[in-house]
Amino acid sequence: MNVNELKGKTVALAASGGLDSCTITKWLSEYGVSVIAITADLGQPDETDMQTIRKRMLSCGAKEALVIDLKEEMAHAGIRLIQTRACYEGGYWNTTGLARHVTVSGLLRVMKKKKVSILAHGATGRGNDQVRFSLATHMLDPKVEVYAPWRDESFIEAFGGRKEMIDFCQKKHLPIKASHDKPYSTDSNLLGLTHEAGKLEWLDTPADFIQPVMGVFPKDAPDKKLTVFVEFKSGIPVAINSEKLKPVDLFRKANEIAGKNGIGIGIHTIENRFVGIKSRGVYESPGLVFLSHCYEFLLQQILDRRARKCYEAAAANLGEQIYQGYFFDLASQMMLSALTPVTRLASGLIGVSLYKGTILFYSSSKTPHSLYDPELSSMEAVGIFNHADSEGFLRVLGVNARALNLKGQVDLKGPVEKKG
Amino acid sequence: MNVNELKGKTVALAASGGLDSCTITKWLSEYGVSVIAITADLGQPDETDMQTIRKRMLSCGAKEALVIDLKEEMAHAGIRLIQTRACYEGGYWNTTGLARHVTVSGLLRVMKKKKVSILAHGATGRGNDQVRFSLATHMLDPKVEVYAPWRDESFIEAFGGRKEMIDFCQKKHLPIKASHDKPYSTDSNLLGLTHEAGKLEWLDTPADFIQPVMGVFPKDAPDKKLTVFVEFKSGIPVAINSEKLKPVDLFRKANEIAGKNGIGIGIHTIENRFVGIKSRGVYESPGLVFLSHCYEFLLQQILDRRARKCYEAAAANLGEQIYQGYFFDLASQMMLSALTPVTRLASGLIGVSLYKGTILFYSSSKTPHSLYDPELSSMEAVGIFNHADSEGFLRVLGVNARALNLKGQVDLKGPVEKKG
Amino acid sequence: MNVNELKGKTVALAASGGLDSCTITKWLSEYGVSVIAITADLGQPDETDMQTIRKRMLSCGAKEALVIDLKEEMAHAGIRLIQTRACYEGGYWNTTGLARHVTVSGLLRVMKKKKVSILAHGATGRGNDQVRFSLATHMLDPKVEVYAPWRDESFIEAFGGRKEMIDFCQKKHLPIKASHDKPYSTDSNLLGLTHEAGKLEWLDTPADFIQPVMGVFPKDAPDKKLTVFVEFKSGIPVAINSEKLKPVDLFRKANEIAGKNGIGIGIHTIENRFVGIKSRGVYESPGLVFLSHCYEFLLQQILDRRARKCYEAAAANLGEQIYQGYFFDLASQMMLSALTPVTRLASGLIGVSLYKGTILFYSSSKTPHSLYDPELSSMEAVGIFNHADSEGFLRVLGVNARALNLKGQVDLKGPVEKKG
Amino acid sequence: MNVNELKGKTVALAASGGLDSCTITKWLSEYGVSVIAITADLGQPDETDMQTIRKRMLSCGAKEALVIDLKEEMAHAGIRLIQTRACYEGGYWNTTGLARHVTVSGLLRVMKKKKVSILAHGATGRGNDQVRFSLATHMLDPKVEVYAPWRDESFIEAFGGRKEMIDFCQKKHLPIKASHDKPYSTDSNLLGLTHEAGKLEWLDTPADFIQPVMGVFPKDAPDKKLTVFVEFKSGIPVAINSEKLKPVDLFRKANEIAGKNGIGIGIHTIENRFVGIKSRGVYESPGLVFLSHCYEFLLQQILDRRARKCYEAAAANLGEQIYQGYFFDLASQMMLSALTPVTRLASGLIGVSLYKGTILFYSSSKTPHSLYDPELSSMEAVGIFNHADSEGFLRVLGVNARALNLKGQVDLKGPVEKKG
Repeated sequence: MNVNELKGKTVALAASGGLDSCTITKWLSEYGVSVIAITADLGQPDETDMQTIRKRMLSCGAKEALVIDLKEEMAHAGIRLIQTRACYEGGYWNTTGLARHVTVSGLLRVMKKKKVSILAHGATGRGNDQVRFSLATHMLDPKVEVYAPWRDESFIEAFGGRKEMIDFCQKKHLPIKASHDKPYSTDSNLLGLTHEAGKLEWLDTPADFIQPVMGVFPKDAPDKKLTVFVEFKSGIPVAINSEKLKPVDLFRKANEIAGKNGIGIGIHTIENRFVGIKSRGVYESPGLVFLSHCYEFLLQQILDRRARKCYEAAAANLGEQIYQGYFFDLASQMMLSALTPVTRLASGLIGVSLYKGTILFYSSSKTPHSLYDPELSSMEAVGIFNHADSEGFLRVLGVNARALNLKGQVDLKGPVEKKG
Repeated sequence: MNVNELKGKTVALAASGGLDSCTITKWLSEYGVSVIAITADLGQPDETDMQTIRKRMLSCGAKEALVIDLKEEMAHAGIRLIQTRACYEGGYWNTTGLARHVTVSGLLRVMKKKKVSILAHGATGRGNDQVRFSLATHMLDPKVEVYAPWRDESFIEAFGGRKEMIDFCQKKHLPIKASHDKPYSTDSNLLGLTHEAGKLEWLDTPADFIQPVMGVFPKDAPDKKLTVFVEFKSGIPVAINSEKLKPVDLFRKANEIAGKNGIGIGIHTIENRFVGIKSRGVYESPGLVFLSHCYEFLLQQILDRRARKCYEAAAANLGEQIYQGYFFDLASQMMLSALTPVTRLASGLIGVSLYKGTILFYSSSKTPHSLYDPELSSMEAVGIFNHADSEGFLRVLGVNARALNLKGQVDLKGPVEKKG
Repeated sequence: MNVNELKGKTVALAASGGLDSCTITKWLSEYGVSVIAITADLGQPDETDMQTIRKRMLSCGAKEALVIDLKEEMAHAGIRLIQTRACYEGGYWNTTGLARHVTVSGLLRVMKKKKVSILAHGATGRGNDQVRFSLATHMLDPKVEVYAPWRDESFIEAFGGRKEMIDFCQKKHLPIKASHDKPYSTDSNLLGLTHEAGKLEWLDTPADFIQPVMGVFPKDAPDKKLTVFVEFKSGIPVAINSEKLKPVDLFRKANEIAGKNGIGIGIHTIENRFVGIKSRGVYESPGLVFLSHCYEFLLQQILDRRARKCYEAAAANLGEQIYQGYFFDLASQMMLSALTPVTRLASGLIGVSLYKGTILFYSSSKTPHSLYDPELSSMEAVGIFNHADSEGFLRVLGVNARALNLKGQVDLKGPVEKKG
Repeated sequence: MNVNELKGKTVALAASGGLDSCTITKWLSEYGVSVIAITADLGQPDETDMQTIRKRMLSCGAKEALVIDLKEEMAHAGIRLIQTRACYEGGYWNTTGLARHVTVSGLLRVMKKKKVSILAHGATGRGNDQVRFSLATHMLDPKVEVYAPWRDESFIEAFGGRKEMIDFCQKKHLPIKASHDKPYSTDSNLLGLTHEAGKLEWLDTPADFIQPVMGVFPKDAPDKKLTVFVEFKSGIPVAINSEKLKPVDLFRKANEIAGKNGIGIGIHTIENRFVGIKSRGVYESPGLVFLSHCYEFLLQQILDRRARKCYEAAAANLGEQIYQGYFFDLASQMMLSALTPVTRLASGLIGVSLYKGTILFYSSSKTPHSLYDPELSSMEAVGIFNHADSEGFLRVLGVNARALNLKGQVDLKGPVEKKG
């Protein structure tokens, strides 16, 4: 889409209140486009005053500026993340990816009421967020069009990058917070915060110049182990240290406890964006990392070998789906359904010790569906598992093992032989 | 197999030199079985003097006692572990599982020379090690029989458990080190150490009474970040901090550096044993954890999205194969072959910061096959990736996304909607 | 378990009425074991008179003999098979495996009422059925013990095989149907029939001596194409050629139509039994093959690429679970749940042509959730899919493709180059 | 890319010689673009005279017209297809997808010699072929640009579709074969032939109006079973009915034998194109279907359960890679490497019976690595597999099965219970 097609129309802009939001609002207004700026309150830890953003957007020329409260949706979605342990490529917790789904879903509700059918956003043309905005929007409402100035030649020509936007805003006396020397950009919500771009783009540059927002780096955490207990009921974390908490408060509490102990701060990945480009990110998600570790300790007691494999496949799949903007499609529905029989069983009280960025298992109790049984596990006692039964067990397995050799299927110079 | 079938025959016993080895050797000798005790030198960090073990076995009645040096095989196998990142059920590095394959392979070489065709071992009838001993043996030499006293009713009747064995050894004046009050058992080699059984069997008992052997718990590590550089050539770690090292020395160095910084000490899992029982283990594998993190940081630059998925599937598969005793079968050969095109590309110098059990990415350089390219990744510059191209990209993806909605395939009350 | 432990006790025997059932009943009775023979009516196409079996079992010494009607359960389970397309190792439709789960479930209901806690069966010690009997029983009622004469040394000594059993029965004047010269054995139910053992064990022996029961070989089918229409509602086949049919009748009708056209007759696999042995089977499942082809043609219209992958993974997994006796465990519950969002969408009318063992797609209509859209698909028309958008789409994909080459990741002497 | 950017330059056009090739060549020439028309001889069964095509292209204005012989590459690639059994979404043998990789690879060799760096093709903007042309080109030579008239607005405006092209060619007196009434389009090579578009786009239209080229529909095949023997050596089919054949001749022979018996003619799928659109295809690949069935019968004897799973995962993955144009990337290299240990073992003589579109297993011999062993398989004999061992085997498995029930993990109203 092109700005010329928008003249005289109204767009709803997903407005974070940052440099892009301000620039785009002003620029569109000058082109004769009515902008309704909608800011999603996702429980961002670094944005305390949503009303300030609202006013800022009006100053930038928005016809209307709204804040919608999506903290509860965000927290519920976060519980899904814990239940699926849906990391992407081994480390990133998908907090931004998930938030885009929540934001689009909230924006579309408002747009429907206001009869606006164009959603604009400030995500760039090389990133993942543009994908999530488009796909989530099209899946939830195929009649809505998506406009991304960063993919519009007119906008790209006017603004090569960050510098030109700051110059523009300063010239127009817009109330921006950005300045020319911020070394990277961030995005945040109740569940996590991502740092990327800027100086972070150079891999020979250590990321330790980053200022954590949701906690501290391990070296700045207290030199004292903290033991914490989390209670789960049917897959939902319901209490921390015996204090019953609703989802939003639970995540706030979890972020606070874990963040100050250096948990989940500074997670680093070089990941494959959906558009096929590698990017480097540094992430914070203290509460998620802490709670999901507890959940993993719980699942380790519940899932047998077969269920564990299904679980891991579903988790990996969902991690990719969320990252790529497909959290609303049929495949995601299938994988979320697959988890239902597991979450039903996931009740228990898990204790862990937090210390300077590390989490150690402390204890577990009240797990009615745990398969762990010290009596069975013991190498000593003779009980319902008779040691001698294993003789038959292994004799049966041995028939196949021997046949593999007899039929020339074993690589006798195999992986553990001394080489050269 | 039953001890009565062994009378007058010779068995090769895989002898660690511990309580089981002593008891079994003596007990078999008294039954008229000739025992050749073979101790594998796997670079155990807690067993400095292999010759002492050898003498101990002779005192216990062994007809012959040998030590075979398998440190190099163990180190080569360890490099495979790094290349495959083959953890089991999300955490355990399979060091004992891998060692069983190395040990069997080494023992069979000796047995062939000595024309012994029965391999005896002291693994119990509820554990994984019995499986690995049997399967590895049958695959490498189907004519060899495996005898496990812990699956022989005669032995089980004589020795209910640890207590009875200690009593037996003391009565027979055997030179055992064990005493009645050791709270758990350990197994170790160059790559790692496992703690299990005993007091560890109770999940309401924190594991902090454990004494780490290969390093220290995070709280006892120095309060100072250490930056270390590892160089990889075609998938093989060849130098640490510019010092070229052969595999055995490289692992020793890696264990030392990582261990004293609390890395990879106290890994805790409740895992599914092959026989279908859950067990709890606490693991140490400082060098492996450290090196494999470096390797992961390298791979993140090399693997595109498609290759990454193949890699993760192969890694998960191999983790299970090693754990279950199938490292020599056709499936393992397939998965190891699958990794060849990746290891070929895995060259580079990776720097990481170690601090009290945490590893942070520090820097990367000299990676000829890295797909990471700051110019491409940048949200700003206009280069070979034209932002406007994404408009077409997303319009194409949008056709399917919209169809999903139009055909009623989207769950509009989906996973991010506020629930009742 | 050993027959000596059973003296004076009562066992429920899963009695097919064949040679094994007769021999076991008589032999157990002579040992002083009370036998309640329970025959599952699974809609076996080759067993018309269940009451004859009942009487036969009484003649063989059973204290009591019952027939339980499980045809409806069998048909419902068959619909699951269609929904999951759960074949095993590429061809076998798991009909016997599924039936064991149905049988155990039915038997346990009766046993509970009669307070019998030992289930006996005539499956051998090398097959899959013993596994299914044991696992299904233990999962549904862990207090029930399973007794398998073919794993009891006393029975094995008495009966080396088929010949000795026939001799025994003849000597005891039992009303067996078997004779010494039957060249293979069969097992059947409403969904399918399996032939194995006997002469079939030799791979240089073509299987064409087999007499199909549920239909005819393609060469004996009519030389005339038959077009048939199947209607599905939310994953359930509800009508054939516009005739509404309940599940049992639907399978009977489907078997009849497909069987006489040579569909699904003579499916041949050499498969991996759970105990690690290869076996050869020849299978008949005309109705299942026919209906599942129709269902596949329906799903091809409904599943997008992502959902299809999830579906195929779930199907393959369930195929193995059913084959191995794990249809009641947590992993199966997860995979069955995963299919729910798909079956919900699977409505439509599918026409196929049947001809001498082949099935060709004929037509499709009334598929509200189909993603197939001739207008989109067309290479000609310009509509919501603008051809020019693909330019951006491919330029985006091309960035990664080029990088693979530039970073030395492409094998330029690759899989399509002329060799040698 | 736009035709205006091409003026005065030289492009290499992948020219099939059909309507698109003629139109594009003429149209480009008139714009001042030099066209070198390159026709790949892929062993197309429906194009006997390659030189006629060459002359036709010259008549259409090509500056130069060449034919390159890629039959051998095509045959080698076909053997890969058999070894991987790489179907796409359950049925289509990917013959066109594979051919695009072969063609691009061949064209680039010629273009390098002639120093041409723009590759043009006539694939449309909604199909898969454009993707394969682009990705294969970029991976093999990132400096080469790809020009697709069907994504160029100027061309699309000039030619709405087939009709306009025919009019244009007739007006310019070009020697086209096409006429206004061909009901669908085809693409073919040594391995297979695809029919799509035109009347095939309507799902309520049976596809029986199609004229098979590589064989006959089952109903037109002889009413007589034909038994054929194929010999494999290390994964390569080397002889049919004892006649040693090189790959190209082997595929011709296989196509002839299978095609006339109705094998692999009329395969029908509705598949997910890479661009996210469903399309309907009807396929012919008689030789491939026949040979791959034989190969499957061979593999069923060789692959144990674990290897089979790895094999199926690799096959499914490669099927998708080839379909989507990624046969040259790292993921494909990994999966092809994974198959190496399997093809090494895949030797044997397989006999099958062909009859009116059906293939039945006939016999197997000379399979040195087969795990099938009638003696082991037999339910009767007592040999190295002792029936009584299974008692221990099942008792071990039963511990877990019982625990699942005791811990509330079994769905007692499960999948085989009578519903309603």
